[in-house]
Amino acid sequence: MRIARFEANGRISTGLVDGDSITPVDGDAFGDRRPSGAAVPLSSVRLLAPILPRQILAVALNYPSHLQDRPVSPRPEIFVKAQSCLSNPGDAIVLPATSEHVEYEGEMVVVIGKRCKKVSPDDALSYVFGVTCGNDVSARKWQRGDMQWFRGKSCDSFGPIGPWIVDGLDVANLNLSTRLNGEEVQRCNTSEMINSVRDTISFISQVTTLDMGDIIFMGTSGVPKQIKAGDTVDVEVEGVGVLSNPVIDDPIPSTWTDRR
Amino acid sequence: MRIARFEANGRISTGLVDGDSITPVDGDAFGDRRPSGAAVPLSSVRLLAPILPRQILAVALNYPSHLQDRPVSPRPEIFVKAQSCLSNPGDAIVLPATSEHVEYEGEMVVVIGKRCKKVSPDDALSYVFGVTCGNDVSARKWQRGDMQWFRGKSCDSFGPIGPWIVDGLDVANLNLSTRLNGEEVQRCNTSEMINSVRDTISFISQVTTLDMGDIIFMGTSGVPKQIKAGDTVDVEVEGVGVLSNPVIDDPIPSTWTDRR
Repeated sequence: MRIARFEANGRISTGLVDGDSITPVDGDAFGDRRPSGAAVPLSSVRLLAPILPRQILAVALNYPSHLQDRPVSPRPEIFVKAQSCLSNPGDAIVLPATSEHVEYEGEMVVVIGKRCKKVSPDDALSYVFGVTCGNDVSARKWQRGDMQWFRGKSCDSFGPIGPWIVDGLDVANLNLSTRLNGEEVQRCNTSEMINSVRDTISFISQVTTLDMGDIIFMGTSGVPKQIKAGDTVDVEVEGVGVLSNPVIDDPIPSTWTDRR
Repeated sequence: MRIARFEANGRISTGLVDGDSITPVDGDAFGDRRPSGAAVPLSSVRLLAPILPRQILAVALNYPSHLQDRPVSPRPEIFVKAQSCLSNPGDAIVLPATSEHVEYEGEMVVVIGKRCKKVSPDDALSYVFGVTCGNDVSARKWQRGDMQWFRGKSCDSFGPIGPWIVDGLDVANLNLSTRLNGEEVQRCNTSEMINSVRDTISFISQVTTLDMGDIIFMGTSGVPKQIKAGDTVDVEVEGVGVLSNPVIDDPIPSTWTDRR
């Protein structure tokens, strides 16, 4: 099932996608999903982030090809992205004026379906609602220079997800690829992840209650490239679809000056 | 005005506190606040975190006395606490079984009242709704050993706030004190902050939209002490009141084992 959120005629709805059409349903992604109207062409609606997560967590350094000379941690290395970085399929990734060097990170994103705390790895997958595509956009200079990754990972527009959530996939074996202006720049399979979805959910849930609608960015592979205004980044997860976002420079000047 | 959230007879309401009584009002803290019932004794209700924030941001190293040998940054050093760490006045701070060393951090917490992006320091205070007390509970071993501060700062119960929000205070000149089992262990004034509220809001809003109900932990002073099961931590901000939380050991065993 492909579960989307969309806007049409000024109204935001949840919908089920089938081929090139979308059928609006009652409630949100976790509701009964009973049809509430006629199917319309996908091309006639504006897709939104398929969920409004309560919180956005992410796994760092989760593919061997992304580690370079860094050691493998004995546990998932988790960070939090501010909820306000969430953005929609097709929305512009906005490069802050003073960030200098921003990169894409194509990732599989897991959507939690049920509240859980201290689940074992063996039980963890039963709390997964589905997966979508995500771009964990990263301002590298800030990520390296600031004490924590707030500006590096949580700028507005740095968390696009979509185009919809798909349930029932084998999250431990999905191809993932990223294209920059149509050219493939990342290719991997989620089986390469150092921390599987089950281990990551179990680990997080030891100390933090995960709840319906929380999302987890599962990490990126390889060495991502810089993005610049005019670029388009496509993230594709097998069985899900393609999340596509253009890149622009922030048109609004800053009103902050660092202290000397 | 003292604006609280409380539970009484199984119902959660917003209320205005006057002396030892609380009057329920319509809507949330940002609503019309028209009385919706008779005043009842404060002692007859259970106070809750005065707001359910969309997101929780925090400033690191914001008092000279907390810096020790660390340099002053030319800008606020911001981190994100997972929304799920929020907890209520009186709720137990739960020490995770494997965290080893946990400390209190008594702080002033700012509540944002209006959406803002790229506000100048001069305009920033007009977006403040009010302030409350907070305890930025920190698991130091995890904070130092993990790549990011997720486990160090975002465990369930690591973000108590309250007892209520007070508006109209001079946030740049409030005494703040913390007591551990009745003994004063922190005393400072918010005028000592390296990054004022106005600078911090301006800085964050350059890259991240702040919205109504977002909260910012403004940092702690001095060298906090370890807390253990059986302790009680009180955080008092001048003109607000006292946030008090007992400390317990996590009674539930872990279901996670680090890889070797």
